[in-house]
Amino acid sequence: MGAVMTKADLMGALTGDAGVTALFTDEAWIARIAEVEAALSLAAGTAGAVATDLAGEAAAFVLAFRPDMAALQARMPQDGLPIPEYVRQLKEAADPRLHPALHTGATSQDILDTALLLALARLNDRFDGEVTALATALDDLNARQGDQPLMGRTRMQAALPITVRDRVSAWGAPLPRHKDRLAQLRPRLEVVQYGGAVGLRGGPDNRAGGDAIADALADRLGLHRAPAPWHSARDGLAEYAGWLSLVTGATGKIGQDIALMAQMSEVTLSGGGSSSAMPHKQNPVAAETLVTLARDNAGQLALMHQALLHEQERSGAAWVLEWLTLPRMLSATARSLSLCTDLIGRVERMGEG
Amino acid sequence: MGAVMTKADLMGALTGDAGVTALFTDEAWIARIAEVEAALSLAAGTAGAVATDLAGEAAAFVLAFRPDMAALQARMPQDGLPIPEYVRQLKEAADPRLHPALHTGATSQDILDTALLLALARLNDRFDGEVTALATALDDLNARQGDQPLMGRTRMQAALPITVRDRVSAWGAPLPRHKDRLAQLRPRLEVVQYGGAVGLRGGPDNRAGGDAIADALADRLGLHRAPAPWHSARDGLAEYAGWLSLVTGATGKIGQDIALMAQMSEVTLSGGGSSSAMPHKQNPVAAETLVTLARDNAGQLALMHQALLHEQERSGAAWVLEWLTLPRMLSATARSLSLCTDLIGRVERMGEG
Amino acid sequence: MGAVMTKADLMGALTGDAGVTALFTDEAWIARIAEVEAALSLAAGTAGAVATDLAGEAAAFVLAFRPDMAALQARMPQDGLPIPEYVRQLKEAADPRLHPALHTGATSQDILDTALLLALARLNDRFDGEVTALATALDDLNARQGDQPLMGRTRMQAALPITVRDRVSAWGAPLPRHKDRLAQLRPRLEVVQYGGAVGLRGGPDNRAGGDAIADALADRLGLHRAPAPWHSARDGLAEYAGWLSLVTGATGKIGQDIALMAQMSEVTLSGGGSSSAMPHKQNPVAAETLVTLARDNAGQLALMHQALLHEQERSGAAWVLEWLTLPRMLSATARSLSLCTDLIGRVERMGEG
Amino acid sequence: MGAVMTKADLMGALTGDAGVTALFTDEAWIARIAEVEAALSLAAGTAGAVATDLAGEAAAFVLAFRPDMAALQARMPQDGLPIPEYVRQLKEAADPRLHPALHTGATSQDILDTALLLALARLNDRFDGEVTALATALDDLNARQGDQPLMGRTRMQAALPITVRDRVSAWGAPLPRHKDRLAQLRPRLEVVQYGGAVGLRGGPDNRAGGDAIADALADRLGLHRAPAPWHSARDGLAEYAGWLSLVTGATGKIGQDIALMAQMSEVTLSGGGSSSAMPHKQNPVAAETLVTLARDNAGQLALMHQALLHEQERSGAAWVLEWLTLPRMLSATARSLSLCTDLIGRVERMGEG
Repeated sequence: MGAVMTKADLMGALTGDAGVTALFTDEAWIARIAEVEAALSLAAGTAGAVATDLAGEAAAFVLAFRPDMAALQARMPQDGLPIPEYVRQLKEAADPRLHPALHTGATSQDILDTALLLALARLNDRFDGEVTALATALDDLNARQGDQPLMGRTRMQAALPITVRDRVSAWGAPLPRHKDRLAQLRPRLEVVQYGGAVGLRGGPDNRAGGDAIADALADRLGLHRAPAPWHSARDGLAEYAGWLSLVTGATGKIGQDIALMAQMSEVTLSGGGSSSAMPHKQNPVAAETLVTLARDNAGQLALMHQALLHEQERSGAAWVLEWLTLPRMLSATARSLSLCTDLIGRVERMGEG
Repeated sequence: MGAVMTKADLMGALTGDAGVTALFTDEAWIARIAEVEAALSLAAGTAGAVATDLAGEAAAFVLAFRPDMAALQARMPQDGLPIPEYVRQLKEAADPRLHPALHTGATSQDILDTALLLALARLNDRFDGEVTALATALDDLNARQGDQPLMGRTRMQAALPITVRDRVSAWGAPLPRHKDRLAQLRPRLEVVQYGGAVGLRGGPDNRAGGDAIADALADRLGLHRAPAPWHSARDGLAEYAGWLSLVTGATGKIGQDIALMAQMSEVTLSGGGSSSAMPHKQNPVAAETLVTLARDNAGQLALMHQALLHEQERSGAAWVLEWLTLPRMLSATARSLSLCTDLIGRVERMGEG
Repeated sequence: MGAVMTKADLMGALTGDAGVTALFTDEAWIARIAEVEAALSLAAGTAGAVATDLAGEAAAFVLAFRPDMAALQARMPQDGLPIPEYVRQLKEAADPRLHPALHTGATSQDILDTALLLALARLNDRFDGEVTALATALDDLNARQGDQPLMGRTRMQAALPITVRDRVSAWGAPLPRHKDRLAQLRPRLEVVQYGGAVGLRGGPDNRAGGDAIADALADRLGLHRAPAPWHSARDGLAEYAGWLSLVTGATGKIGQDIALMAQMSEVTLSGGGSSSAMPHKQNPVAAETLVTLARDNAGQLALMHQALLHEQERSGAAWVLEWLTLPRMLSATARSLSLCTDLIGRVERMGEG
Repeated sequence: MGAVMTKADLMGALTGDAGVTALFTDEAWIARIAEVEAALSLAAGTAGAVATDLAGEAAAFVLAFRPDMAALQARMPQDGLPIPEYVRQLKEAADPRLHPALHTGATSQDILDTALLLALARLNDRFDGEVTALATALDDLNARQGDQPLMGRTRMQAALPITVRDRVSAWGAPLPRHKDRLAQLRPRLEVVQYGGAVGLRGGPDNRAGGDAIADALADRLGLHRAPAPWHSARDGLAEYAGWLSLVTGATGKIGQDIALMAQMSEVTLSGGGSSSAMPHKQNPVAAETLVTLARDNAGQLALMHQALLHEQERSGAAWVLEWLTLPRMLSATARSLSLCTDLIGRVERMGEG
């Protein structure tokens, strides 16, 4: 689960990302849950747990099913997640003949975690492209302004002259590393979750059957197979959260430097913000926002690591802490990447004089 | 500014508080901004900066004014806050005769900070009452179950027998202190903000005039007067955030203990959550949620303190970090208080055997 | 318990405080433990639990006793704290006649928590004085340089002219509030801890006797009495940690502003740092260190609030998290206060041109 | 730089690691600094910047040189780091003929960062081995107790029966991933730092010469070459800190589960801790300590990410925040790995009945 603020469009316009927000609405969650449940029906067929005809029929039923959202919401405080009520409604609406092919061998967490990973897998393609786009924007800035002289500064003091290229290249240096990291972590992250009630998959007497469903489910959804469920081992998500914060660390450093440069007239930006008291003033709002989002992600990251301490086979408390935290980090990262690329494009002049 | 997720009603139903959410919608913000701008017009009259008739007319105009929300949103990324565009629209719509009585001597931050404090002042009355309600619920639980024997446990090990009353009284012990703290901090927190562009109020030549407006504004809004603006001194808000997290620390401890007790059959709750895989199982979802929200608030608190480092007369970066963080803390605290009181009321049996 | 790094004198010279470090050495802890155990012997006499003669004899024995430090250290990993082995050695060394007056009715946590509070009570007198000293230094700076013109800056941009006094007064504004906060929280913090194994004091049959010992112990040590033990209710310490971080938030803001001013030649400091590559350069090292310590305290604060979630009658895990965190915060705060006052005194010139 | 508490041997015996502590004493730092400065002299010879004979002579001089530690300490508050004074003393003591081969083209940060990476490279070999050792200990536990029945628990409630093997295998599942991560990040982390005053290496007119020294320095020290200095791009260290916290997340989860199991008599440990009030009680101190260290690392991680926001070519404030934080994380991780392996080895019985 997890969500980001959405009705607050004013705040969202400054600090949010419409794409990430759209991924975490109730409607998007329910659509993704249906996608996973339908794939699970088909996977149960592929694995031979149910007849393939029945599996296909069940999958079609799932995709056409529209749950009673108010009832889902009403059960959230008791159940802690929407799946028990969703599955109850689904089975009530379905011909009992379909029941063996619905939610086969799954527990609520299987569905939600796999649905989350579906969203992340799609987002990661975007992130990878946006890191590249930022690198390109920095190259373009260097092409435009790289030869301009600039005072090199260390410990907040003028040190020795450098060029714009020297600083801008330092901004860009982490970006290829970020791409490498993402490529390395994705196979650890984008992994199907399928374990059943306590992680035994098909149960003590049918683990092979459960493994077959898990693999088929992964294949259908384009996720990596998992030799075992990872209900209580969330290192993939915590590592990923670290990646998000590394990215915003890079954009935050750019933002902070641009705000400092703006203060010393070392940069001119088009499209700066205005003030209600001083209409002439051009505030480097985007640069400041990059700093805000970097500091925010750094703080949220601690919570994703606190959430590593799942009790026993599965923790409710640690899991919901992820839900509160990860969407905010995704939004901050997505916003930072597009905002930073846009900001770099708006640099009209950089360097001294 | 600041907002909490709202379209995500499923997550909201578990971890959010409808009252706090409603305080931070765009509509609520705009209503509060109008309330402050109208009071400012009247305060300018009271202080003699404009004629009182004009002030009254301007205040009425402000309260009737409906801004173009789409335009406010469109300007957010450039301006970093909605006030410049709001004031532009307001003045454009108003008879120029009213202009001296509109946004008199104010800067954007004055309006937003004062509007925030208005919201907090109202919320604090509620929080104070809810801390009392929780204390009462604990007293009631003691009346019902206090004499039951319970194994006292230290370092996660059985130690010596105690009674339910011993543990429940320890849960409640911080609550009177929380009430005292809130009473002590409110005069430091619920303070008007009025400084103008760089905090000089009426400017170098008219500070007395500016002070008079500030005092009149405070009086009209029921806030405490401020001898100086606190644009860059956010200790009142950071202290308050600490209070919020102290409260959820208390409710989180209760939740954690109840989850542990549930595991050892030391408590029976009515209305527990269900599981999609094990319909018979009763999950202590509310207890876990209290733990989640306490850990979340603890993490967010760090960011409210990182945001103390405002640069110079006012920081955009640090300020927006507050906006991202404080509403989430308020929501977590409000939710925790009502959830905890409800949970305590649902204890059917506590103690051994 | 708790400690700060001390053999690392280079780091300590930059970021540490010798007084705080000295409070948390092994030797200081053992001395304080003896002080508490001796006072407890006397309190047991005062309360009538043992004969006063025996109590006096036991107290004298405790104060003269020198434990085998290597054995204490060797038992730490098993016991998690030094008291069980300390008491074992103490009783082994003492005439068995004294046993009833040694560690009477206490558990390990009683001794360590009370010993910690003794240290904090003394430190708080110092902190209060140092906040005053910083306020005085700021007043002196205003007397020297207050009339100088300075560019007011908001959102990292030049806004409108102000004076040095305007900025320096804003720096000082939180300090009286910090003094008020400290005065208000000390009675909640500096409270004796005495509960026995599971917090029942004299046990189910002799609570009044236990209460009498607790009160006598508080009186002897100059701490506030406690109606009940607070083993699992650590809100006093978490609130205090918030105060420490509020203080460093104030000094960190000053440091950050001075670093920014140094960059724009708006301030001249005597005694700046040197560079191995650029001997001419004067680095605002003290100003930067204030920023470091403020950000560090903000981060540590989150852990003090995570540590509010004690399980049941007492948590080992949460308690040790306090020990790791609080001494570092105390050291950062003490260092920040003295460093900031020193830095303000080294301002030779502030303002434009 | 950076250090961990060391004189506090009691705390150290519980939560610290002697090996990490030894890496961060003043003496260890100075020895490592000498190692880097000597390698730099030789590298300057290799790169042709100075005659190889002179280089060799200078390197020998550096290794034999013993600085005045008190003077280093005295300069720390002004300089913010020990290198300027160290180099001053070194050059003063050396025949001026050697000066061109001493600290050639380097700035203080080059020396300290490279010296840090030397320490980390050695530690990482140990960490890699200790992750393997923990995995082996878990395999051994499974061999001993894997077939025992155990109640599977989700959301702190009994769910369905599993075996000890199911839970222990879930504990071990992240460990191979941690080894993969470490192998992947080491080439990004263990990289030489050599940039000179503002990162231009040999300066605008001799970058090739500077690059040659940098490469020779890396080769001599067994570190990876760096195409450019990374003074202000600390993503390698922040990523590494994330790895440390992932590792303690895994050991913390094990510790938490064992503490919970101890409470329900699902595990018997040899060598548990004792209580001063209840000598019969066996406290799972090691298990609790693993939880403490995991939560601590999670919190510290936020600061390593806050420290990504270096200003301009180099930040003093962000850099020192690393120093305060990373050694504590290293110590926590080293302690957790050895403590967890030891704890697993002390499991005498696991499972029901």
